[in-house]
Amino acid sequence: MPINYKEIEEFLCKLALEKVGPIIKSKSGTLQEYDLKTGSRRVDIVTAIDKQVEAIIWETVKKEYPDFKFIGEESYIKNVTKITDEPTFIIDPIDGTTNFVHDFPFSCTSMGLTVDKIPVVGVIFNPHINLLVSASKSNGVRVNGKEFDYKDKLKSMGPLVLNKSIVALQPGSAREGSNFICKMKTYQNLLDCEKGFIHGFRNLGSSAMTLAYIALGKLDSYWDGGCYCWDVCAGWCILNETGGTIVGANDQEWQIGVNNRTYLAVRGCFESTSGEQKKYIKDFWSCVDGKLSYE
Amino acid sequence: MPINYKEIEEFLCKLALEKVGPIIKSKSGTLQEYDLKTGSRRVDIVTAIDKQVEAIIWETVKKEYPDFKFIGEESYIKNVTKITDEPTFIIDPIDGTTNFVHDFPFSCTSMGLTVDKIPVVGVIFNPHINLLVSASKSNGVRVNGKEFDYKDKLKSMGPLVLNKSIVALQPGSAREGSNFICKMKTYQNLLDCEKGFIHGFRNLGSSAMTLAYIALGKLDSYWDGGCYCWDVCAGWCILNETGGTIVGANDQEWQIGVNNRTYLAVRGCFESTSGEQKKYIKDFWSCVDGKLSYE
Repeated sequence: MPINYKEIEEFLCKLALEKVGPIIKSKSGTLQEYDLKTGSRRVDIVTAIDKQVEAIIWETVKKEYPDFKFIGEESYIKNVTKITDEPTFIIDPIDGTTNFVHDFPFSCTSMGLTVDKIPVVGVIFNPHINLLVSASKSNGVRVNGKEFDYKDKLKSMGPLVLNKSIVALQPGSAREGSNFICKMKTYQNLLDCEKGFIHGFRNLGSSAMTLAYIALGKLDSYWDGGCYCWDVCAGWCILNETGGTIVGANDQEWQIGVNNRTYLAVRGCFESTSGEQKKYIKDFWSCVDGKLSYE
Repeated sequence: MPINYKEIEEFLCKLALEKVGPIIKSKSGTLQEYDLKTGSRRVDIVTAIDKQVEAIIWETVKKEYPDFKFIGEESYIKNVTKITDEPTFIIDPIDGTTNFVHDFPFSCTSMGLTVDKIPVVGVIFNPHINLLVSASKSNGVRVNGKEFDYKDKLKSMGPLVLNKSIVALQPGSAREGSNFICKMKTYQNLLDCEKGFIHGFRNLGSSAMTLAYIALGKLDSYWDGGCYCWDVCAGWCILNETGGTIVGANDQEWQIGVNNRTYLAVRGCFESTSGEQKKYIKDFWSCVDGKLSYE
């Protein structure tokens, strides 16, 4: 029997709204007592709530979908956990950890499903601004349960051109070495009059919220490195359903998997999608100074 | 008769909710047909709506407060318009122009009043996420009309320390010359492990929204140059009412006026406010590479 993606989308929406969202909202900004010098207490405390939320999600989904695989940020083991072709829930219980710690209202839950390693369901819920964005393969996108007319939105937007665009950039938590230098130089190239000269950049501190906003036509693109599959899986499906695409952060990385660790996400276009997107991606890559690379 | 600040706050809230907010919400993202190469059509189109909204605000406030001065982004004339000691409305009809053009949901209206050049009333309304933050001197802060207990919020937050903080940074639209270089180098210093090592930066593309979030304890500070009095006036009053402070962006600029053009805004602290804030400001200034300077 084929998998009913729409049903899974609805199931994850209910889980986000009824169980996960309320915890994120109530615990946001309540975990300030940690020592940053070592970072150990910070990680411990946040991980405790992350784990708690992930356990709730896992328990709920395995009751309903006992044969599906499950990958979560907290249960993931580097070099051991592998994404297979099996139906796999890929979950970030709380995306935007720093936001969550500081009560900056852009932490959210991000829950996706892959089949054949392709994201086919995505649900992102930010309880602070009460924004639920969900999609499933070939079923389009819904905002708080209401159908989102992305073609109408794209029609009202200008052409997708690098120097008219608004780009999400996030330096992340690793701030040394060649990846950090590559990011800082690339930011400068994108902003600079001589090169990218983008309209502006934005940083919400949440990959999932950023991808949701690109899908909704509120940002044009997002370039990052260091993220994991759970940061992008749900947003990837949502973005695909609005004509958007995700490639690698570095030149010529046209085909990547969900766990590529570097990403360039670009919104859809009303006309001649692939031509405009391709040019946008090439122009963007030409501003990348060096190469983002993660183990 | 002394001026009733609370009454003016309520008056501006009503104006924001009933007249200004609905226009911003309905026109957001509808103005994509412009040529960026010269930038001229973009400015023209946005200015048309900005002017329209500013005219509505001006008309409404002068009916109620005919003796007060009025300074708005659109009617301001460089080197001619002066802020005096008279009661003066200082207004940004639509703060976050790039957001407004792109429908990124963080454009807002920002309406303040100064007396003796000091911000004494501030109202910021973002109709996209339905967030109204308002304050008046010695009357505290309200969120969507409800009293905001800032002491309780500050109590739940950690100490104000640079390397545990989340900082708003905006490169702005002028992207060349010494100010741009100073900003980029300072961003790097703030992020770098060796110097600031802040938790992260955020960029919402709206000075007013940023100041509102600092007052609400959702961001720790905001460093910028190039803004004008209408970008900060309302937020300044709101921030002051929660124990926050605004100084200049450069070393030793402890006392500045609303039209200083460079700003470092810092949140309040639960205990020993002035000591912790002072240290934070000094630590921040030590990360500033060069000097921001605007005509």
